[in-house]
Amino acid sequence: MQIAKFTVGEAGEREVLRRVLAQLSPAEASLVGPGDDCAVIAADGDLVVTTDSMIEGPDFLLRWHSGFELGWKLAAVNLSDVGAMGATPTGLTVALACPKDTEVSLLEQIALGLNAACRELAPGCGVVGGDLSTAPVLTATVTAFGSMRGRAPVLRSGATPDDIVAYAGDLGLAGIGLSRLYAEDHALDELKARFPAALEAQLAPRPPVALGVAAAEAGASAMMDVSDGLSLDAARLASASGVTLDFSSELLQAAFGDQRGQSVTVYEMLTGGEDHGLLATFPADARLPAGFVVIGAVRDPRADEPVHLDGAPFEPRGWDPFVSAPGAPTR
Amino acid sequence: MQIAKFTVGEAGEREVLRRVLAQLSPAEASLVGPGDDCAVIAADGDLVVTTDSMIEGPDFLLRWHSGFELGWKLAAVNLSDVGAMGATPTGLTVALACPKDTEVSLLEQIALGLNAACRELAPGCGVVGGDLSTAPVLTATVTAFGSMRGRAPVLRSGATPDDIVAYAGDLGLAGIGLSRLYAEDHALDELKARFPAALEAQLAPRPPVALGVAAAEAGASAMMDVSDGLSLDAARLASASGVTLDFSSELLQAAFGDQRGQSVTVYEMLTGGEDHGLLATFPADARLPAGFVVIGAVRDPRADEPVHLDGAPFEPRGWDPFVSAPGAPTR
Repeated sequence: MQIAKFTVGEAGEREVLRRVLAQLSPAEASLVGPGDDCAVIAADGDLVVTTDSMIEGPDFLLRWHSGFELGWKLAAVNLSDVGAMGATPTGLTVALACPKDTEVSLLEQIALGLNAACRELAPGCGVVGGDLSTAPVLTATVTAFGSMRGRAPVLRSGATPDDIVAYAGDLGLAGIGLSRLYAEDHALDELKARFPAALEAQLAPRPPVALGVAAAEAGASAMMDVSDGLSLDAARLASASGVTLDFSSELLQAAFGDQRGQSVTVYEMLTGGEDHGLLATFPADARLPAGFVVIGAVRDPRADEPVHLDGAPFEPRGWDPFVSAPGAPTR
Repeated sequence: MQIAKFTVGEAGEREVLRRVLAQLSPAEASLVGPGDDCAVIAADGDLVVTTDSMIEGPDFLLRWHSGFELGWKLAAVNLSDVGAMGATPTGLTVALACPKDTEVSLLEQIALGLNAACRELAPGCGVVGGDLSTAPVLTATVTAFGSMRGRAPVLRSGATPDDIVAYAGDLGLAGIGLSRLYAEDHALDELKARFPAALEAQLAPRPPVALGVAAAEAGASAMMDVSDGLSLDAARLASASGVTLDFSSELLQAAFGDQRGQSVTVYEMLTGGEDHGLLATFPADARLPAGFVVIGAVRDPRADEPVHLDGAPFEPRGWDPFVSAPGAPTR
């Protein structure tokens, strides 16, 4: 028996919205939810905001990501940016655009994934509003908000020499997952069985969102979400702070050489991309929150050498969407 | 002499960002601007947030919209939603995705248009952050924030029988502009000369953003941004409020029959789409802010008749992105 597809073109905007909204639980701070011109969220300190798009082709493929994983990842990567300021996520808006022959059930699965990631990674946060439209490929933009709750944001620019460098989260796994997907595109189930940690990190990452607030409370001097590769993002933090970050291959190997059964090389840790962990610097006498491990130290700046490995310059490498993306489209 | 194109693929993310950010002036409430994981905006009352995407093909065509007009419209349609809650816009985030062979100058022009619309329509508001990525067609999602500054939001659900119905902004012009563009696609300059008001309303609308706060202060009982057609959006407000809205063709004709030299029929006013004006209801004894004109009255609800024209049912008509869009793509 063939099960009939039910597409967004057949359903129309109102029915699609009804089905998508049914998958969502309200955000705690929500005062006015979906259905008016805007959502309204209770203010609780200064507003933190970030936005990130994922586009079918360069950013994901539907033969790799399920709808649920895609929704999960969309929420996770944005929540991670909010956490990296030392803020508490309070809400998301989601702009989804898709071809008219997209199945409504795919959008429902995306909504389920968005909701589940909020509940697990940032309890109290939820989808507060959005937009539906048509596009040649599935296109999703999430904007995430958070509240500073009276704290000062932890910027990239606050690291000083002799601070320690610490990291929380998966490191290098997502990049390994992506390279396995590209190399062996034919066998998703088999890959998931052989490389479970790497595939999960790529398809549905679990950033340590709540550790952002913990790091802020522990006195982190600088912090950022690592999304383009540890060495590339470290170079950005180093430049913003006017310092050099010196990673220790021994400390990296000890802490991240085996992650849930997946072996990861130091080079993979430094260049992977899409880790969505927290890179933070702390004063040398700080008590690190559980979940952070020391992986290096902050040094005086060296000209054109923002990143060192074991005291020697390391060329920062990572992801540039306009240059790197294997499927980056031209017209 | 041929002028060489400089594409985003050649420039890379960092250089594109540098050039785009150079077009932007900071938002007044901005505490942390572009360059960190998140922007931080000073809180000043509850947070209002809305998001809207525009996608090349279904939502705009680059042979019609200049980059400046596109940026202007992106900001305008989102600022209009913030105003429609009775809120003051404080910031925008912008997620832009484009093919690698897109000229950097197009993105610079979009940024200029975004900035100009903020300065003119919502002084103090500005772009606070964003995201750049690749996509098969130009894709832009703006999320706009505003502050209630201690006021309660004006919802769609507050209209009561015997309220007056008022409107501020252009009405039906943008729909006429779109139909002229579709009908005579070959002659943009000629169309702009023949139908200046309609083309401007379609390509670079000027919603009365600040009148949203004025309406809230004047005691508006319900309010919304009209984006899908007056009758269709009025039906939404009527349903949310449990009333019927009765428009007067005489009042509509008198106020909107000639807009800056463009004649507009009552049918075009009721069904046009993309007006981005403010539909509001007020107690009968309210003093309307300058810019609002009375176009009807709120009546007791009639079953399945949310909208009346001169006391008789009017079938709501307007825009559904998954059904109406002439260029709505399938795979």
